[in-house]
Amino acid sequence: MAPEELDAASGETAGPEPAPGTRRPGGRTARTRASVLEAALAELVEHGYADTRIDRIAGRAGVAATTVYRRWGSLENIVVDLAEHLAVSITLRADAALEEHLRTVARAVVALHGDPAHRAWLRAMVSAAAGSPKAQEALSAVLANRREITSVAVTEAVARGEVPPGTDPYEVIRATVAPLYLRMYITGEPVGPAEADRAAAAAALAARAGLYAPDRTAAEGPGGAEGS
Amino acid sequence: MAPEELDAASGETAGPEPAPGTRRPGGRTARTRASVLEAALAELVEHGYADTRIDRIAGRAGVAATTVYRRWGSLENIVVDLAEHLAVSITLRADAALEEHLRTVARAVVALHGDPAHRAWLRAMVSAAAGSPKAQEALSAVLANRREITSVAVTEAVARGEVPPGTDPYEVIRATVAPLYLRMYITGEPVGPAEADRAAAAAALAARAGLYAPDRTAAEGPGGAEGS
Repeated sequence: MAPEELDAASGETAGPEPAPGTRRPGGRTARTRASVLEAALAELVEHGYADTRIDRIAGRAGVAATTVYRRWGSLENIVVDLAEHLAVSITLRADAALEEHLRTVARAVVALHGDPAHRAWLRAMVSAAAGSPKAQEALSAVLANRREITSVAVTEAVARGEVPPGTDPYEVIRATVAPLYLRMYITGEPVGPAEADRAAAAAALAARAGLYAPDRTAAEGPGGAEGS
Repeated sequence: MAPEELDAASGETAGPEPAPGTRRPGGRTARTRASVLEAALAELVEHGYADTRIDRIAGRAGVAATTVYRRWGSLENIVVDLAEHLAVSITLRADAALEEHLRTVARAVVALHGDPAHRAWLRAMVSAAAGSPKAQEALSAVLANRREITSVAVTEAVARGEVPPGTDPYEVIRATVAPLYLRMYITGEPVGPAEADRAAAAAALAARAGLYAPDRTAAEGPGGAEGS
């Protein structure tokens, strides 16, 4: 939906007409989106995914409920949109060993879990993802973002001979975060730096042993069961 | 709630009075429970967790909706109760190496995911667990059941000197299933025997390296962030 439609739907006046063909980055539409997403986050923290209502989000954001319904359509879509809003940048040292990189990523994941807004959002994502391909895609994108960060570290580790050529960064990052996600969002067990470091150590060990390199995958043949 | 109350609530007649102090295992109450749980499973397969309704479950099971509400109270409780109903026994060879044991468990997890009823149930569990301590507990119990199976294998591996003394079977099984759960229930990516075997290999490797033995845990100190 175009920003103009959004303003029309919200009943706001359009303000001074921009020159034809120009955009208004950071203008009213962007501000409305930010208010709604912040309001959604606050509602998720207070009520949890199952009890968060769009009308309350709209009320908290100070916009008409129709604005929220027309732009996002459902709470699920708002939660997915929060992924971009909450994107986190992780900076890695250029010369560190793979395990140190993974430890940085794993500790960041655990630290984010300590932030109530992030925890509420990721809980909502996991809850939605169990039944929604769209939420699954958004969660995959979160991991893919971490994979980009990890790609550099894996490439360097290959150059150093620390891990075999062709090691898949996505497999490495999946292995790093999986035990943390299991505790945080499935079994609800506590996580801390110790769990982060252990997950990083295990993933680095498997990567060094070549478990995430293509030879291994090719030797195993195609996977079986349907997964979505 | 006592079985007698359940029968009263369902409006069923009580049948011949059992002798005082006797139970009726496999009697009407057990059959009602089984029908409701089977109906719930069928509804979860058809509609998914978010769109499964208790009145439809009751209709399919041929019992009054009040029976279901009084016994379980909520869909979440029905889903948790399904954990026991769907318990799976995995048999391991007595003399196998740890990695072979873990491969058996991992492949069983993947195979269950190929079964629509199990998949629908576990999706419902994961969806509920993101916001519900009760569902988290039930999922932990599912893992604990697999830990029992793995305990024997870990004990034997310690005796053979394959893994260090004190290796925690729960950590080993968590490491084995975590990458599979991540794909199956969070990112929705496909899983098959290849993923199962890789997860088992990585977990066995980390166990052999002593990552799940107490020395490591003690050296790291207590964990930090709250996790439920």
